[in-house]
Amino acid sequence: MIVIMQKGATEGQIGSVVARIEGSGYRVNISQGEERTVIGIIGDGRPLDREQIGRMDGVERTVPILRPFKLASREMHPQDTVVAVNGVSIGGEQIVVMAGPCSIESREQLLESARAVKEAGATVLRGGAYKPRTSPYSFQGLGEEGLKLLAEARQETGLPVVTEVMEPQLVELVSEYADILQVGARNMQNYALLHAVGEAHKPVLLKRGMMSTIEELLMAAEYILSHDNGDVILCERGIRTFELYTRFTVDISAVPLLKQLSHLPVVVDPSHGTGKWELVEPVSRAAVAAGADGLLVEVHPHPEKALSDGAQSLKPGRFADLMKSLAPLAQAVGRRM
Amino acid sequence: MIVIMQKGATEGQIGSVVARIEGSGYRVNISQGEERTVIGIIGDGRPLDREQIGRMDGVERTVPILRPFKLASREMHPQDTVVAVNGVSIGGEQIVVMAGPCSIESREQLLESARAVKEAGATVLRGGAYKPRTSPYSFQGLGEEGLKLLAEARQETGLPVVTEVMEPQLVELVSEYADILQVGARNMQNYALLHAVGEAHKPVLLKRGMMSTIEELLMAAEYILSHDNGDVILCERGIRTFELYTRFTVDISAVPLLKQLSHLPVVVDPSHGTGKWELVEPVSRAAVAAGADGLLVEVHPHPEKALSDGAQSLKPGRFADLMKSLAPLAQAVGRRM
Amino acid sequence: MIVIMQKGATEGQIGSVVARIEGSGYRVNISQGEERTVIGIIGDGRPLDREQIGRMDGVERTVPILRPFKLASREMHPQDTVVAVNGVSIGGEQIVVMAGPCSIESREQLLESARAVKEAGATVLRGGAYKPRTSPYSFQGLGEEGLKLLAEARQETGLPVVTEVMEPQLVELVSEYADILQVGARNMQNYALLHAVGEAHKPVLLKRGMMSTIEELLMAAEYILSHDNGDVILCERGIRTFELYTRFTVDISAVPLLKQLSHLPVVVDPSHGTGKWELVEPVSRAAVAAGADGLLVEVHPHPEKALSDGAQSLKPGRFADLMKSLAPLAQAVGRRM
Amino acid sequence: MIVIMQKGATEGQIGSVVARIEGSGYRVNISQGEERTVIGIIGDGRPLDREQIGRMDGVERTVPILRPFKLASREMHPQDTVVAVNGVSIGGEQIVVMAGPCSIESREQLLESARAVKEAGATVLRGGAYKPRTSPYSFQGLGEEGLKLLAEARQETGLPVVTEVMEPQLVELVSEYADILQVGARNMQNYALLHAVGEAHKPVLLKRGMMSTIEELLMAAEYILSHDNGDVILCERGIRTFELYTRFTVDISAVPLLKQLSHLPVVVDPSHGTGKWELVEPVSRAAVAAGADGLLVEVHPHPEKALSDGAQSLKPGRFADLMKSLAPLAQAVGRRM
Repeated sequence: MIVIMQKGATEGQIGSVVARIEGSGYRVNISQGEERTVIGIIGDGRPLDREQIGRMDGVERTVPILRPFKLASREMHPQDTVVAVNGVSIGGEQIVVMAGPCSIESREQLLESARAVKEAGATVLRGGAYKPRTSPYSFQGLGEEGLKLLAEARQETGLPVVTEVMEPQLVELVSEYADILQVGARNMQNYALLHAVGEAHKPVLLKRGMMSTIEELLMAAEYILSHDNGDVILCERGIRTFELYTRFTVDISAVPLLKQLSHLPVVVDPSHGTGKWELVEPVSRAAVAAGADGLLVEVHPHPEKALSDGAQSLKPGRFADLMKSLAPLAQAVGRRM
Repeated sequence: MIVIMQKGATEGQIGSVVARIEGSGYRVNISQGEERTVIGIIGDGRPLDREQIGRMDGVERTVPILRPFKLASREMHPQDTVVAVNGVSIGGEQIVVMAGPCSIESREQLLESARAVKEAGATVLRGGAYKPRTSPYSFQGLGEEGLKLLAEARQETGLPVVTEVMEPQLVELVSEYADILQVGARNMQNYALLHAVGEAHKPVLLKRGMMSTIEELLMAAEYILSHDNGDVILCERGIRTFELYTRFTVDISAVPLLKQLSHLPVVVDPSHGTGKWELVEPVSRAAVAAGADGLLVEVHPHPEKALSDGAQSLKPGRFADLMKSLAPLAQAVGRRM
Repeated sequence: MIVIMQKGATEGQIGSVVARIEGSGYRVNISQGEERTVIGIIGDGRPLDREQIGRMDGVERTVPILRPFKLASREMHPQDTVVAVNGVSIGGEQIVVMAGPCSIESREQLLESARAVKEAGATVLRGGAYKPRTSPYSFQGLGEEGLKLLAEARQETGLPVVTEVMEPQLVELVSEYADILQVGARNMQNYALLHAVGEAHKPVLLKRGMMSTIEELLMAAEYILSHDNGDVILCERGIRTFELYTRFTVDISAVPLLKQLSHLPVVVDPSHGTGKWELVEPVSRAAVAAGADGLLVEVHPHPEKALSDGAQSLKPGRFADLMKSLAPLAQAVGRRM
Repeated sequence: MIVIMQKGATEGQIGSVVARIEGSGYRVNISQGEERTVIGIIGDGRPLDREQIGRMDGVERTVPILRPFKLASREMHPQDTVVAVNGVSIGGEQIVVMAGPCSIESREQLLESARAVKEAGATVLRGGAYKPRTSPYSFQGLGEEGLKLLAEARQETGLPVVTEVMEPQLVELVSEYADILQVGARNMQNYALLHAVGEAHKPVLLKRGMMSTIEELLMAAEYILSHDNGDVILCERGIRTFELYTRFTVDISAVPLLKQLSHLPVVVDPSHGTGKWELVEPVSRAAVAAGADGLLVEVHPHPEKALSDGAQSLKPGRFADLMKSLAPLAQAVGRRM
């Protein structure tokens, strides 16, 4: 950390800051500029609160030198993490496509979707049993009944399943059925939930909050990792901006940036990210080209009857076309489907 | 709802949309324009999913006519809701100031703060026992120990207390100690938590998410109201924008807008909203002038030693000055402190 | 400036950075941390490009110590600038209200507006002769004809006038008629225009861009000040965010922040800032309470017939009410109308 | 347009709205709902100001049915526009890469860059002679001297050149040297400039403002098209969001969306869009995969000495690598380099 003193900070103020830092077991480096004194902190002492130092008299501001995330950082863990789920490797050479309906609505709908995405080449089945909905009057999901249908679909197709868990108390139940636990965008900073999935023995798909920075996403991953669950998959799903022709703005740069800052696999959700099925194919292609390890795609046999987010769902035929169009692209960037 | 058909939509497509709408018990009004056909939906039928209609073949988009919130709306409930808490009325003539430290750190710190804010004229004591922190390595609050200290401070000062609850399982415990349950900005769309506080018999202070629209805030309130808890206090606490000189951007227009759209009381948190103690006083004044029913202000006897958010905390002396400066202002807008 | 080297930067890389800095006439302070080397730059040398240093091999990033604006900063110029315009002082004890129609549409409309705002107590008349419009098919203003009408209205009412100038070539013409030149939000970074108004001998009202930071606003002011025109009035007029119930989001914290960072007067435009006439009064009150030196308010005798932005215009009667409600508020914060 | 009346709007208010609409030569369709009356406007009358109607008594809001852009829309002009510049076709099968330094700094720097990008396969040379800079103290470009160097580089390499024009008065001069006139992001709504380039007989590269919606970009194009210049190339160059690890956020969805809404060619600027050279390659790939017709890439022989934006410039070697990596990708999406 570096401490920048105000113009005109007194000797006494500088002395107090130095005393506080040295009192915590660090050394200081003092740089006396024409207008400002700058104090560098050196060595390895007891944890020092940057904010506290920032509030001392005469301090203008403090500048962190190190990133706040550790377990999630590539610096600490240079090689790629590959998450293994029932024979599927996420973060390796293969681009992993997780596909299926937004909400599980019925046995027929789920099984029809599962067969279709399996046939088209998807490697993981997605489907929501518990749904976060803006309105209390909207369909909230089938709950445990939905989880059972997921298990049946897995049984039939062999595809591992990913589904969202929305509260700490349900982590145990959802873990009985799911292969990957999804933490949704609205819950990215639900710390009790991060804690709970951190203690589950299941891979976690962590979606970036619509209002969250890349650093905050990595700090949320850090919560899970620090509870000893190393199998975290990061998901870019669009951030909120002023642009309204799309539901969210997919931050495509986040893909290479996350791969650079962290060792964790990165997938992209073009369905929620754009909110429009016509954009799912081009944005999926962009994600693969940018280096994503996988995609999360909504597929519904009858989007016009879907109980949630149908406007962004692909019909099975279009999904099959998408899968076909991705194969040469994956090859062009040294990956495979 | 209005359905706008695409240019060139066929008779068959229009017919299907009409059939679907009429099949749900509504009448339609068809307006044939030069370029587009527009279908209006009239009457009172079974719930109709706007998204589903929007995905039918030939439909360009749909336009809602009514707001999605009902119980929270002023249209449904024209008179102001006044929330009564241990003799304090929130939403009435008096401007209510809830003050105290961000985190409860020790008995001495809390009691010293409580006495100071009481003496300066605050009417509610605030303090965090459970803290949502971006980093898993930061101080997470004293937990139940903090709740007990809050109860002691209430006992001594007579001030009702407000404190944050972060997970559904803790609602019962926190309710034993707190007079008002706070739902934090990061949890504004934690639906399990909204459900749980909706079933508690305590007033709820609901903070707007940093990236949530006014409509989403009212929909979150709707969740609580629809679980039969009518004592909801809305809190504007700053939204995330591109501006970085402040931690968040206080949306001052939200105050009169929320008062216009809803009957619920509205308070402003200038401490979190700006992140800088120097801005707390002018923004508090702005909030009162804009029509806020109250303020949430961080006060700490020694901000430079605070374990969280000290940079935005006022010292007791400055808080007393703020309270003095607000009195003539409240009077100028027909209120009182 | 401070230069933070990458983890593992070599001696050679550090040496090159030091050589570059010393070669420009500065001294360095080297702080060798456990993980990173940090180089402080001391003294007064030739201008050093922070970006260039940032791209040298082994450099992780650079941190500026000083703010980039100088002439606009309060540090350089501690006392408030008061802009004098035909007997009106902007930035002094009096709150200055600039009112009138968005666009000048006709002689009758302008004179009727001018008389009304004068009678209600406004001190400056505003009105647009050249209008920036999103669509090429919208009314673009009366041009010079509008300027002549403004001069006539000034003649009759004695109010100085402010009007927008949109291109460098028109600065001379507009200066013949206007007392204050307005640079609109869309032109805040139109550097040719900033240059041109910097060379005019007229006060300039500089509106913050809808997506501009406070620092960028002050840098735009710096352009004008550096061309030797010291009479700049800053205007907060709302920034673009994800919130859509208002046209823009008025950044109320910007008012005290600008007053703290700069010596220039600060006014607020609640009409454009909110886009809704019902919000003009509460946001005007908030602006005055937050410390604004003035307001820019749209008033139109018949808003429902206005050729631009009528939705945010007050009728004369409401404007008179607003002026009345502001008087006690101004007094409550130690100002006067 | 559709007019939604307020709950409780009177017969008289509805009558006035109908009279106004019919008075402009349209027919109406009135739909009487349970709670609201909705008025549809039919036929082809005189231009009707949506805002004006929106302000009439009893009106809640109005909803546009048609997009505001016409000449730029694909509906009006279904086939792709291909802009031809000295033998280069922009918007056809070939992906066009415009590369070169951000600022022209010297004859050597420009010629070295031009040769390098030509050799690597770029088809257009870019370089700034006039530079918009946030600070008045930064390098502002070589001006006409730079234009002459551009012409020399074109002479030598045969590459057509694109360069920015910042003010209407310079359009004629810049047109003498440039093959494509660039309108920068900060000037996207500089209407005098749009007017001037609309009257020039040169293709225009129009960059999306950092604060501009897709609709506003198309409206800016509409300005140019309506002045009879049909050769407009749209450029996505990143929008401003809360994310700070990148300078801007490239809105990748804008590429397919613009191609769908408009017939104009679309290029992407990953250099300005990310501000980091390490991200230029993956984001370039994403742009091509998403359907962009071209790229605008900064290349500088010595980025660490660049006078502007060096942090986002590629060295010639890396640019050559980028070009190589794009070839199979272009093929995978049915295009060629």
